[in-house]
Amino acid sequence: MSGSPAMNRLVAALKRLPGIGEKSATRLTFFLLSAPDPLAAELADAIVRLKRETVLCEGCYDLTDRSPCRLCADDQRDDTLICVVEEPGDLQAVERSGQFHGRYHVLGGALSPLEGMGPGHLRIAELERRVRSGEVREVIFATNPNAEGEATANFIAERLRPSGVTLSRIACGMPLGGDLEYADHVTVGRSLENRHKLS
Amino acid sequence: MSGSPAMNRLVAALKRLPGIGEKSATRLTFFLLSAPDPLAAELADAIVRLKRETVLCEGCYDLTDRSPCRLCADDQRDDTLICVVEEPGDLQAVERSGQFHGRYHVLGGALSPLEGMGPGHLRIAELERRVRSGEVREVIFATNPNAEGEATANFIAERLRPSGVTLSRIACGMPLGGDLEYADHVTVGRSLENRHKLS
Repeated sequence: MSGSPAMNRLVAALKRLPGIGEKSATRLTFFLLSAPDPLAAELADAIVRLKRETVLCEGCYDLTDRSPCRLCADDQRDDTLICVVEEPGDLQAVERSGQFHGRYHVLGGALSPLEGMGPGHLRIAELERRVRSGEVREVIFATNPNAEGEATANFIAERLRPSGVTLSRIACGMPLGGDLEYADHVTVGRSLENRHKLS
Repeated sequence: MSGSPAMNRLVAALKRLPGIGEKSATRLTFFLLSAPDPLAAELADAIVRLKRETVLCEGCYDLTDRSPCRLCADDQRDDTLICVVEEPGDLQAVERSGQFHGRYHVLGGALSPLEGMGPGHLRIAELERRVRSGEVREVIFATNPNAEGEATANFIAERLRPSGVTLSRIACGMPLGGDLEYADHVTVGRSLENRHKLS
């Protein structure tokens, strides 16, 4: 690339982001060069402040600007329900559904021996402590419906079983608006297994 | 989105970039949160310095860190040939082909009445001045092989015709509707080799 060292440097920095290759990085660099000054300044400042102004909530381990987070501090939510998710992004997905009004617990990942993720890397002890506190009646496992997520849910459920709380797993089936013809056979099979009576 | 205001702010800033929607922006934000500190700092700093350390070359109007740029200052290059391109990214594409050893002229775009780009928006007068200086023997039009690029080449060729220099157009070894910036160097090189005179 000709251009300036400053351009090469930004291209190199952008290329380290997931899903951004040489061409996207170059395109973004040219865009930022021709964009109004405030846009680039705002982006740079937002990146700088991101980590400085984001902390882990000591209640649910979600990413937040203050601990306890808005959801943990909200006394309108049901303390007897805990929804267990892998990552903060999953918490957001559940929250967007508007179907859950209890508390959350972010594990920080899923069990994955191949990637060196063992039980010690997840916030399982913290979850056990919350369940042992006595108020919790049900733990809903909303880990991802893949091998790692299933294994994680099953592993933690075994650990929590002695506590006597209800342990549940989100349903697997066809996504709304999906097409049976193009769905994978495991999903279709699961949607058959999990069929419910029409009243 | 739950999370911190700092996260929402970065997602909003990233979404203003071309080709980045809500999901990509959220993914990049989570990545930057979990990435080592120096990576985010380097990216923010690279964005801040990009414009500050990038100027237009007064010779060819390429983006560079100093004027005249490396290519204009190189006395090994052929002063009798000028390759006309639309954008700095196109110059880089031609340079990567290794088939051109003359000088460049970056127009700053292409004629596009629909987007309000008229001759006055392009560096045509500057090109005429360079051609009139007397040293130039041939002007090669390497504008993009699409309607705007063709129109731009033909328009400028008409303006330069009285000067008596040879006017040529890169060959359409390039796929029609394509973009020089994203073509592979062999194709770009072939299109230079096969350039033909504009009658």
